[in-house]
Amino acid sequence: MTMFGLGETEIEPLVTALAGRDLSRDDQRQLFARAAWSGIAEPGDRLAGALITSAGAAESLRALLASASVESMRALLPGGEVDDDQLVQALERWRPRLDPSAAVNSMRQAARVDARLLVPGDPLWPVGVDDLGGHAPLALWVRGTDAALAALPRSIALVGARAATGYGEHVTMEAAAGLVDRGYAIVSGAAYGIDGMAHRAALASHGQTVAFLAGGVDRFYPSGHDALLTRIVDEGAVISELPCGQPPTKWRFLQRNRLIAAASRATVVMEAGWRSGSLNTAAHASTLGRPLGAVPGPVTSAASAGCHRLIRDFTAVCVTNPDEMAELAPLDRSPALFGPGELDDRSPDRTRLFDALSVRSPRHVADIAARAGLSLDAVRSLLGALELEGEVAERERGWVRVARDADRR
Amino acid sequence: MTMFGLGETEIEPLVTALAGRDLSRDDQRQLFARAAWSGIAEPGDRLAGALITSAGAAESLRALLASASVESMRALLPGGEVDDDQLVQALERWRPRLDPSAAVNSMRQAARVDARLLVPGDPLWPVGVDDLGGHAPLALWVRGTDAALAALPRSIALVGARAATGYGEHVTMEAAAGLVDRGYAIVSGAAYGIDGMAHRAALASHGQTVAFLAGGVDRFYPSGHDALLTRIVDEGAVISELPCGQPPTKWRFLQRNRLIAAASRATVVMEAGWRSGSLNTAAHASTLGRPLGAVPGPVTSAASAGCHRLIRDFTAVCVTNPDEMAELAPLDRSPALFGPGELDDRSPDRTRLFDALSVRSPRHVADIAARAGLSLDAVRSLLGALELEGEVAERERGWVRVARDADRR
Repeated sequence: MTMFGLGETEIEPLVTALAGRDLSRDDQRQLFARAAWSGIAEPGDRLAGALITSAGAAESLRALLASASVESMRALLPGGEVDDDQLVQALERWRPRLDPSAAVNSMRQAARVDARLLVPGDPLWPVGVDDLGGHAPLALWVRGTDAALAALPRSIALVGARAATGYGEHVTMEAAAGLVDRGYAIVSGAAYGIDGMAHRAALASHGQTVAFLAGGVDRFYPSGHDALLTRIVDEGAVISELPCGQPPTKWRFLQRNRLIAAASRATVVMEAGWRSGSLNTAAHASTLGRPLGAVPGPVTSAASAGCHRLIRDFTAVCVTNPDEMAELAPLDRSPALFGPGELDDRSPDRTRLFDALSVRSPRHVADIAARAGLSLDAVRSLLGALELEGEVAERERGWVRVARDADRR
Repeated sequence: MTMFGLGETEIEPLVTALAGRDLSRDDQRQLFARAAWSGIAEPGDRLAGALITSAGAAESLRALLASASVESMRALLPGGEVDDDQLVQALERWRPRLDPSAAVNSMRQAARVDARLLVPGDPLWPVGVDDLGGHAPLALWVRGTDAALAALPRSIALVGARAATGYGEHVTMEAAAGLVDRGYAIVSGAAYGIDGMAHRAALASHGQTVAFLAGGVDRFYPSGHDALLTRIVDEGAVISELPCGQPPTKWRFLQRNRLIAAASRATVVMEAGWRSGSLNTAAHASTLGRPLGAVPGPVTSAASAGCHRLIRDFTAVCVTNPDEMAELAPLDRSPALFGPGELDDRSPDRTRLFDALSVRSPRHVADIAARAGLSLDAVRSLLGALELEGEVAERERGWVRVARDADRR
């Protein structure tokens, strides 16, 4: 295997670093190709998605590098879907970016900042984004913890204007803290104003938080949020579909918004002017059929005009507190404890909790909740009940499963 | 005709004063009987309504006074609708109130304060209340101008909490002034807080305003609004289904709310706590199928919690300005002026405007609009156009129709 002028001995360790795990030879090729594609096609490029879906990332990249002709590309696509004009335009878009050394440099830069590359099929791939269909991301560059990525399926996006008011920030702080308490992770876009407050409040509540960026994960934007984003990388996750080194652009902000909407169970607009960019995220959520909420505010505040517009004209639900936000996308609650048969081996929550526990490595409640996909409350309740039964035990650094004969076998 | 111990010579001038016009002998009897019934049955008494609908106000009152027996009452009702238990209970409710001298005193008191009695069929009867069906008022005691009563079909009710905030009062002032500018009359309940502000702002904008009271129109409630209610009587109208001398009660406030909702084209809740009485008005509007709006506010303000609840759980429309409130219940707008055929004799607006004008008595724009059922804007536009055509003329005290040969004949 030789790609982009790199031999196997160079590709393998790089790809393994980006994947964060050992891969088969073919998976290595595909991952490498998706990494390259993420620098060739702009986010949301439907034709790149169609090519990769149809022929695979590696094969379509090989064809592109070999000739980049309309004929060679058309041969990879199912008949009738794409006309030649579209292919010509796509090749014109991609050709200036067929720069192997830039691609390899960006991968090496990713490895340097401990970024990983998630591709569809990865256990941590946020399956919500697959609902974007032809506009789904080809790959996601990630810096952060597994727990934060695993928490995405139970996340709510809190978004809003950069020009937030004290009111908007206050409400966002209450919302993020309240949702974390109810077992949700907080997704946002790391911008000034509402976004930043959403991340900060989630971190302050020891919750999971994920920031989607419009540029590479090695260059934090806005730069005034360097410290915040560094903390999110340490305790949450930062995600982008752009490779390292790429700057954010207007287009990329809009495309980033579709990821925020798709990766979350629901989107809540906290505060937004009449033309705020967060209305774009709301529109994506709505198009995807994701629940959409908006927080009302004073009608005398221009910073709430976009929220009122969403409630009035776009059937966003009027949400005023974390309970109402949680109702948009309820998490499975553990059933009443000690009810008939609730704690027998067939209880799905119990099974999931056990799967999330280790006999040897103590784990904190938040970590267990993230792994099990259960709310913090549910985990605490189940742990309490199971401790009484002697099934689990609390150690200094967290909870462990009590070893049984079956575990020692 | 003798009723309640009064002979014809006493009844006729009293009834004529209450009706504000000459009536046939039978209409006099019916009006007198409805006046009496309004002091016998509490507002919303379905059985009284059924009796009067079935047998007429005078005949059912006569039967009630003659024997007040279950048998005599059942004979007046269509079979099967009412069981004897209900009749027994109704008679027990009504019997303590069969006091002819009290009834006559309250009518004389009404005449003293220049109150009139509207009954169904009166040209100024607000037909919207008929949508209450079996709960429709039997009669309405009124003090105020004909123009205000005539404006009810194009009114919007602005209601809300007594414990209004500065925010709520500000928004109410803007709403009332803006709706008056758009040709609407303002209906409310004359309470402290939002209601009072709605009336005041309508008066300040030289608009029509109507206050529905829960007690007699001779005793203003709350007493702190004496001056305001006196002004509403002079420039608008005060309405109650209770006869003079009756105090407001909790029940009567709730029943009064149904009149506010039914008499208006739409109801907007400006500010309301979680359990505000104005939510009762909103519920009536909703039950009647009237458009319902609510003004959002800060989620941190308990005074807006009821509004958010209406938007969230009761499908109230989120309205933030007078335009959005007007959209709840649009008035017929005059078509574009000078368009093809718009100003020919077949234009309905022109016909209605001419009907509202007198050759001899100059009338102000607001008065003309009220009579014609057109918006102020429409009247001003049409008057301007017709003045150019020489059809109307402005005098010192208002507009007149220019006399033509047809008028002199």
